[in-house]
Amino acid sequence: MPAKGAQVAMTADVVVAGGGVIGTAIAWRAAAAGLDVVVVDPGCGEAASLVAAGMLAPVSESLFGEDALLRLNLLALRRFPGFAAELEEVTGQRVGLRREGTLAVAYDPGDHAALARLTAFRRSVGLDADELDGRACRTLEPFLAPGVRGGVLCAGDWSVDSRRYAAALREAMRAAGVRAVRDRVVAVRARDGRACGVRLAGGSGIDTVDGAAVVVAAGCWSGGVAGLPDALHAAVRPVKGQLLRLRMPAGMPPVISHTVRATVCGRDVYVVPRADGEMIVGATSEERGHDLTVTAGAVHDLLHDAMSVLPVTSELSLAEACVGLRPGTLDNGPIVGTAGLGGLLVATGHYRNGILLSAATADAAVACLAGRRPAEEWEPFSPQRFMAVVRSR
Amino acid sequence: MPAKGAQVAMTADVVVAGGGVIGTAIAWRAAAAGLDVVVVDPGCGEAASLVAAGMLAPVSESLFGEDALLRLNLLALRRFPGFAAELEEVTGQRVGLRREGTLAVAYDPGDHAALARLTAFRRSVGLDADELDGRACRTLEPFLAPGVRGGVLCAGDWSVDSRRYAAALREAMRAAGVRAVRDRVVAVRARDGRACGVRLAGGSGIDTVDGAAVVVAAGCWSGGVAGLPDALHAAVRPVKGQLLRLRMPAGMPPVISHTVRATVCGRDVYVVPRADGEMIVGATSEERGHDLTVTAGAVHDLLHDAMSVLPVTSELSLAEACVGLRPGTLDNGPIVGTAGLGGLLVATGHYRNGILLSAATADAAVACLAGRRPAEEWEPFSPQRFMAVVRSR
Repeated sequence: MPAKGAQVAMTADVVVAGGGVIGTAIAWRAAAAGLDVVVVDPGCGEAASLVAAGMLAPVSESLFGEDALLRLNLLALRRFPGFAAELEEVTGQRVGLRREGTLAVAYDPGDHAALARLTAFRRSVGLDADELDGRACRTLEPFLAPGVRGGVLCAGDWSVDSRRYAAALREAMRAAGVRAVRDRVVAVRARDGRACGVRLAGGSGIDTVDGAAVVVAAGCWSGGVAGLPDALHAAVRPVKGQLLRLRMPAGMPPVISHTVRATVCGRDVYVVPRADGEMIVGATSEERGHDLTVTAGAVHDLLHDAMSVLPVTSELSLAEACVGLRPGTLDNGPIVGTAGLGGLLVATGHYRNGILLSAATADAAVACLAGRRPAEEWEPFSPQRFMAVVRSR
Repeated sequence: MPAKGAQVAMTADVVVAGGGVIGTAIAWRAAAAGLDVVVVDPGCGEAASLVAAGMLAPVSESLFGEDALLRLNLLALRRFPGFAAELEEVTGQRVGLRREGTLAVAYDPGDHAALARLTAFRRSVGLDADELDGRACRTLEPFLAPGVRGGVLCAGDWSVDSRRYAAALREAMRAAGVRAVRDRVVAVRARDGRACGVRLAGGSGIDTVDGAAVVVAAGCWSGGVAGLPDALHAAVRPVKGQLLRLRMPAGMPPVISHTVRATVCGRDVYVVPRADGEMIVGATSEERGHDLTVTAGAVHDLLHDAMSVLPVTSELSLAEACVGLRPGTLDNGPIVGTAGLGGLLVATGHYRNGILLSAATADAAVACLAGRRPAEEWEPFSPQRFMAVVRSR
């Protein structure tokens, strides 16, 4: 420990722990609302959002029993275009928003039956999900494998180029005057029952950042920040996702225009097109702690499944294989709201929907910072739901 | 064109075009024999030897109708250990020579029948090839897939860590006083019917290197060097090979000790273990010109075939996928010897056997430079065989 006199401190209105899309979106909007903001992030390129496919897919991500999450995702989707347009305007950068929709296809009879059940559910909750036969699927996407026997067009799903989006958020945040510190937040500091700042690991030479409000938006690393309520430490875990970036040879016309999702012998795969000729193939879901290894088996399975529905992908170059750690939670929903201490805000646990939820999360966080209530769709996703469980034991 | 007075020239006894394992091995031995040597290589890391698996495999690489190549490969294998030992001694570096042999296995009945035919041929020409049943294979390599029904142990095949070997050769060459120029040889220069040096592309600031002898050892790029006999330009072509480097997690014991080769539904794959926990999985053979793209389909097929015979490979990390361009020739044999002009030596076309043949090629080249005849095994591999064809038309 350095002597007390050697402590280096910074001061801000709001300190945000975490510089992924959630942390930067919050920081940008908070600064735009007139607050002085510092973002602390170790900057080692491990943010899940850098690996994300960028699907904005409330429809094809909706599952039985997750009605509240669906309502939140739909709110987030409605908010996204305006947020992205403002982001593009203030930065002059394009974020690659695409509105072609998702074409979900099935490979074998079992996959087809599973897709039919999900489609019935999605329609029952009012979502657009149009069943198509094989010929109609191939009219939309001519490169689909001949064996694809049918699918469902989810016109309400969009996508964004997640790396461009994240880069634009960082630029917007900088332009709005947010200061970035390359370090790791190890603890939230409290005084008189209120958060008053954070303690850093020290790599930046700065020991503490003082602030009247602290936002913990550190993804799957949020549970490692001391000073959060105990229940939250256990509520967030890393869910490993491996993902590939394929690239079309120069001069090849785009092979797909929709996001193509498929279930291949029970295993899910998606292929997301980008305007610049890149195609994202994802993703595994693995309970492997903080392991960041790209494994031979995962790369094989992703390529196999993508090639099963889009054989042309075998001709593309394999530009990158990468790993992200999604912040999963006990109920698959995000955790956004005040938590335990006055001035302490949590915005984490976005699991598979971090890009989609980023704009709406920034709105919710800025509302909380201003003492207002976020939109009612957020109510089921307060940190309180986990803390209540612990108290009732 | 720069003015004539601005030309920058270098002088040496021998100029070697190409700094892969063939060029560096020749340069090292020529310098050790007392010659002043300059090696010219663009140094952009495209040498096929950097990608090579490093198999020293005269037995499991032997094919019907390639008897002369087999004799040459056996000569090269006998020479290799002494050459490698001297290399390790002068550099203090280890090159990772392994003598465990190759275990060739078959996957389905067709693969088994093909392996049996090759084994009968290999035994008929006097090679060691011991047929083993599935149980005996698994005694040697316990991680083989349960479905592997039999195989053949080729005890006469070895391997070397090709990157360490290439690095040691560069170090030995430097230590022996060879000068390296980072540039590309565009032409052999001649005067009075004798080679008198080379012209460079100019990236190094040097325009020409003068020398009484020129060795063209530029792999699949050899055909692009002006001043070689016309027939040689057509005799060498790039054969694209894609290859993977897998890495074992820390603490995992080695999963194989032999090189494991397999034919999986008619497609060949090999897995070569390294002392440091790396495993090489190779390789495609593609006629794609100088294309250096890593393709999704090739990575898939290599992983699929490796996992079919060694399922444990799915657990390893995929450290690298890379491409090398083997210098293939019209008859799959190397091209080593004097060519057309006095003082002009060619050492290229080593195709799948560059690492194996490197030591013997250095001997042959040094013999030629000294006016001696190389070992008789080299006779069928003189450049004359292609030039004669052209003349007889």
